[in-house]
Amino acid sequence: MSPRGPTPRARESRTRSRKPAGEPGAAAGQAILCLNGGSSSLKFALYRLDGQQARRLAHGAVERIGLAGGLFWLEAGEPSRRERRDLDCAGHEEAVGACFAALEAAGLPAPQAVGHRLVHGGARHTAPERVQPDLLAELRSLVPFAPLHLPGELQVIEAVAGKYRVLPQVACFDTAFHRRMPELTQRLPLPERFWHDGLRRYGFHGLSYEYILQALGTDAAGRVIIAHLGNGASMAAVRGGVPLDTTMGFTPTGGVMMGTRSGDLDPGVLLHLLQEGGLDAGRLQTLLNQESGLLGVSGLSPDMKTLLEARARDPRAALAIDMFCYQLRKQVGAYVAALGGADTLVFTGGIGERAAPIRAAVCQGLGPLGIVLDGTRNTAHADPISTAGSPCTVRVIPTDEDLMIARHTRALIFGTQGA
Amino acid sequence: MSPRGPTPRARESRTRSRKPAGEPGAAAGQAILCLNGGSSSLKFALYRLDGQQARRLAHGAVERIGLAGGLFWLEAGEPSRRERRDLDCAGHEEAVGACFAALEAAGLPAPQAVGHRLVHGGARHTAPERVQPDLLAELRSLVPFAPLHLPGELQVIEAVAGKYRVLPQVACFDTAFHRRMPELTQRLPLPERFWHDGLRRYGFHGLSYEYILQALGTDAAGRVIIAHLGNGASMAAVRGGVPLDTTMGFTPTGGVMMGTRSGDLDPGVLLHLLQEGGLDAGRLQTLLNQESGLLGVSGLSPDMKTLLEARARDPRAALAIDMFCYQLRKQVGAYVAALGGADTLVFTGGIGERAAPIRAAVCQGLGPLGIVLDGTRNTAHADPISTAGSPCTVRVIPTDEDLMIARHTRALIFGTQGA
Repeated sequence: MSPRGPTPRARESRTRSRKPAGEPGAAAGQAILCLNGGSSSLKFALYRLDGQQARRLAHGAVERIGLAGGLFWLEAGEPSRRERRDLDCAGHEEAVGACFAALEAAGLPAPQAVGHRLVHGGARHTAPERVQPDLLAELRSLVPFAPLHLPGELQVIEAVAGKYRVLPQVACFDTAFHRRMPELTQRLPLPERFWHDGLRRYGFHGLSYEYILQALGTDAAGRVIIAHLGNGASMAAVRGGVPLDTTMGFTPTGGVMMGTRSGDLDPGVLLHLLQEGGLDAGRLQTLLNQESGLLGVSGLSPDMKTLLEARARDPRAALAIDMFCYQLRKQVGAYVAALGGADTLVFTGGIGERAAPIRAAVCQGLGPLGIVLDGTRNTAHADPISTAGSPCTVRVIPTDEDLMIARHTRALIFGTQGA
Repeated sequence: MSPRGPTPRARESRTRSRKPAGEPGAAAGQAILCLNGGSSSLKFALYRLDGQQARRLAHGAVERIGLAGGLFWLEAGEPSRRERRDLDCAGHEEAVGACFAALEAAGLPAPQAVGHRLVHGGARHTAPERVQPDLLAELRSLVPFAPLHLPGELQVIEAVAGKYRVLPQVACFDTAFHRRMPELTQRLPLPERFWHDGLRRYGFHGLSYEYILQALGTDAAGRVIIAHLGNGASMAAVRGGVPLDTTMGFTPTGGVMMGTRSGDLDPGVLLHLLQEGGLDAGRLQTLLNQESGLLGVSGLSPDMKTLLEARARDPRAALAIDMFCYQLRKQVGAYVAALGGADTLVFTGGIGERAAPIRAAVCQGLGPLGIVLDGTRNTAHADPISTAGSPCTVRVIPTDEDLMIARHTRALIFGTQGA
């Protein structure tokens, strides 16, 4: 199930490129490489998609690009083996070269298309798109909306285009899923001119939400709340497969508190720190993105596993956890109200998939909203984790944003739908 | 019912000053003057409190203090008559003089005590307090937390002290009620040092919430959600008379969107406007306090009555109303989740008391949360406005912050509790 039809341009690309995949002698299915470029890293995953089957053949990363002590690792094979070595790369171009070379050296199939995760697609990009020069130019104009993430991601696309000119590339946007939200929830409570300047509630983690909706199958047609809880955390409310709302807004700093990010704040806090606290915008940027959230309150760590281990002896770790869970509990209530009731609540992301005490705390006292956890099932991560009588089914579903990118890329380049 | 006991100092004042009220020949009850000083205005109300009885003898205001075109008005008598005249006052001292003179000229009883509404009492002031030099000094140190409001309020206290040295004065803080919230909801998701620097979720409209809880009587012991909706708007969740949470945090700019204020925002919005939009902190302050919210989205007016009249022909007015109601609906859901269910939901404040379509829109689809409005009763403002079968009783209760101030002042100065 794809929640959106392809754009006109996508449909055209599909028609043009359908032939190669059907040529005699081609390997079964398609090998798709997914690339996720950070400011100083490049993560990659190679998939073989064949009809309804998907298999991850390899994944790995180049870390500390442009910094001292660079690192490369690759995990592949069955049973899987992990290769790890020092590798200093001056920039993303070199990192892309190292990735392709290592995949070839490991005897893995050459990718037939590359899919990229892009944090931001602005207001116009409502679906994955094939990379063309005009798309790249437009994405460069969006850098002011995501100055920390987009530049590295664009460098990776350019590096692939420079080295492997004929390889089709697809840009998958973390914001695209949310473009079907009503204007009601995309608007900020600001004068209209800012809306036209692009200050909108874009939402993020869209590839994860799409993956979860596909995984839900027919249940995606109901009233669904999804909690994607990792280092970055957000929630989304979806009705009949159509997004209604999400907690992250204009940037990934907003919404609920996270590992190191504050989430939404009273603007008076920022104004006070600027006018009375002697902080400038750059310092605030660092404070609210890297020093706040679970790390800021606990003074210990942004990592939930570390905090859970410490909370019995460390009241500040306990407070940070309580604040996180309390905010999420309120957000579940808010979305039950927005949807007029909920049929399914899904936990995903590193914390959502693995931290049973967090799921229990989030759902505590939500019986009147139709959400009742089964403590034993929850502790055992036994999906579903709600009681048989709970009006809302609570589920734990591991997300796979890379696989979602691979599926989108295949659909756009080879015209193949299906899981 | 007072939700908090008096402070040690309050108890002392009470003992000392109990005698005068009981002296033979004293008028029945006490005449209490309530003063509410804005940056360029002074509102006042004179009450006669006698046992359980309270009567407002007069109210009025001095407007445009320190500006051209100053104005004075007073409404008093039975049936009430309104006096209105031009009056230019250089400062709050002159305005206080005009207020006392006009009350005397109208033949009204001389106030025996003055109660002041103060927007901010910082972290330490958890109840009303008698004005003493050390309190004034401390409140001056809080001006950076409320630079738009506190200076005018302190000038009014000083003007009364200068002119009427023996008149006892009481400071009633809009933040005091919320000081019994748990640390969980008073903390911001920032490093702990900011907590110690006073960056906390103070909450506001506390005098209104206290008044509503008194009005609820024994129902205040349950799980109560109060929506104070006026030009400024906030909501509070209260359990067993003890505040659990409120939407406004560090300043009155935060929480839900309001007439001209944005409410909470993704901090990335402010950082973008500072770093890419060419706005400075002063300009942001004006934007987010005076040009956003209902006014910003509608481009028409911050006034709900005006927007409701316009919405059928003006889609921007309709969108502003929808956003406001949607945010409030989510907040009700959040507080139902936080409280583990709700027994009572109260609408108050200008919009909450008078705008039936807003109440209907806020409660729309909340049946699964136990909130079911009776459309006919709601349109007729017939308290309660929920159906007989609604698990949560929805009420409309006019607030009276001035009367709350008068009660607090009497209790502190004359040792008299009771409504």
